[in-house]
Amino acid sequence: MQGSIKYDDGKVYLEEVGPKHTSVRYELKEVLHSKRSPFQLVEIADSIDYGRMLILDGCVNVCERDESNYHEMIAHVPALLHPNPVSVLVIGGGDGGTVRELLKHDTIRHIDVVDIDEEVVTSCQKYFPYLATSFDDPRVVLHCEDGVEFVRHSRSSRYSLVIVDSSDPIGPAEGLFTREFYETCRAILDENGIVVAQSESPYVYPEVLQQVYSLFSEIFSTALPYRIVMPTYPSGQIYMMMGLMNFQSITDQNTSHSRNFFNSHTKYLSYLTPHLFESVLNLPGDVLRLLKK
Amino acid sequence: MQGSIKYDDGKVYLEEVGPKHTSVRYELKEVLHSKRSPFQLVEIADSIDYGRMLILDGCVNVCERDESNYHEMIAHVPALLHPNPVSVLVIGGGDGGTVRELLKHDTIRHIDVVDIDEEVVTSCQKYFPYLATSFDDPRVVLHCEDGVEFVRHSRSSRYSLVIVDSSDPIGPAEGLFTREFYETCRAILDENGIVVAQSESPYVYPEVLQQVYSLFSEIFSTALPYRIVMPTYPSGQIYMMMGLMNFQSITDQNTSHSRNFFNSHTKYLSYLTPHLFESVLNLPGDVLRLLKK
Repeated sequence: MQGSIKYDDGKVYLEEVGPKHTSVRYELKEVLHSKRSPFQLVEIADSIDYGRMLILDGCVNVCERDESNYHEMIAHVPALLHPNPVSVLVIGGGDGGTVRELLKHDTIRHIDVVDIDEEVVTSCQKYFPYLATSFDDPRVVLHCEDGVEFVRHSRSSRYSLVIVDSSDPIGPAEGLFTREFYETCRAILDENGIVVAQSESPYVYPEVLQQVYSLFSEIFSTALPYRIVMPTYPSGQIYMMMGLMNFQSITDQNTSHSRNFFNSHTKYLSYLTPHLFESVLNLPGDVLRLLKK
Repeated sequence: MQGSIKYDDGKVYLEEVGPKHTSVRYELKEVLHSKRSPFQLVEIADSIDYGRMLILDGCVNVCERDESNYHEMIAHVPALLHPNPVSVLVIGGGDGGTVRELLKHDTIRHIDVVDIDEEVVTSCQKYFPYLATSFDDPRVVLHCEDGVEFVRHSRSSRYSLVIVDSSDPIGPAEGLFTREFYETCRAILDENGIVVAQSESPYVYPEVLQQVYSLFSEIFSTALPYRIVMPTYPSGQIYMMMGLMNFQSITDQNTSHSRNFFNSHTKYLSYLTPHLFESVLNLPGDVLRLLKK
């Protein structure tokens, strides 16, 4: 997927070209920031309909009006399925939104964030302070380096969760979509550990969803996909794939962990509710058939 | 919302302009049909990514790749919540998809379909036979006339369900979004009757969702909104609003009605599953707050 910011008839637009043969055009109020890092073009702009956007190589990566949907779902779903999450590795996530959500879990004592692109971090610190100030928390250690290399050299660590909060499989995130990478992730997870990674939309790349499901089913005890409804992502949705070290751990646990969390945090959540969480693994029939579940 | 089919650089596109300040461009393989009826411009085209589309005044109304999401959700959710649906009135729905789904319910003995625009019916009969052949069923009576007038003159009828399967509140469907119309609908519903109508997306027209919720709360025993995930609708989703004559009827009923339906029909459904149906009333936190629920 690619796109660009264009000026036309006295107005400014983000034209998201593709993926495939469908494109979206957002009218912008103002372009606030534009800088080419060694990895990608990093832009920040205010759109009229969807608020402030982080745009990487012309694609909406984070957007004010629906970032809560994404960050709450990528963080809390695995954190609430793990019986006792303590230590978390976030690959990508340089905007800080996933970390902001993880910090709402009192059991979580340590978070490593590994984003390859320091420019994403510094520009979000300036333009998305409500996301990136999460990096100031003493429980968080930020590493600006290659996530694949970081995982390779972390074999003595044990994480409860590995959250791959990356961009598309094409570009700087390419190495995050290989068998080797997820096998290395498995090696650093605790006995009830969960890895979660994006696996595209069945309307755009059904074959990627199938491949990631198949790969996670081979590598982990269980692969569990779930859908995030995301207006500013192509086809309005994205699927996440979880790989669980121990499926039994989620069926054994009583629900007090998630009940306690929602009791104390519902007022700090924008999107996720206890009822949505209970039904998060319910997939549409066509996706079940695509995955032959 | 408006849009048009455009030729550019040897290719053909549907440009959906808006609503508001976001637009979508679908590359088309071929435009199959284009005719201006007394009510709207009716076009049918094959898009590369989303298959065949019915395009009304430049907006995607029905689309091959996600029509099942819409038609299964608009038909089966109210039909499964009603304890014994027998007679149904569909306003709009000239493509035939909603009727196709309703016919899967053995209890339903009669369906009146009232679409103002005969051109929609005849073009769908030619280009969407898998939708429009539903009109050939002996249980269905098709009326090409104004839905508002039809309801006004139907006061002696009793319907289990009134399904308003309309286009946007602007244009030929405008009269379907008034208090008077829904009060007339209430007068023709049976004691456990349900009316369902579209109420826009909270990302595009949050005020419409609020207004329809508020109106239905005043007119009916209960207003129950639910979300349909729809890639080709603006913001990738649309909300439906149900108005129930008798909320008690859905809490009293045992679940054998829906269990029997799914037992015998799951193989004929593309999108809806028993689990999705069970969680259909679970709304995101921001929508609950918008509706002050």
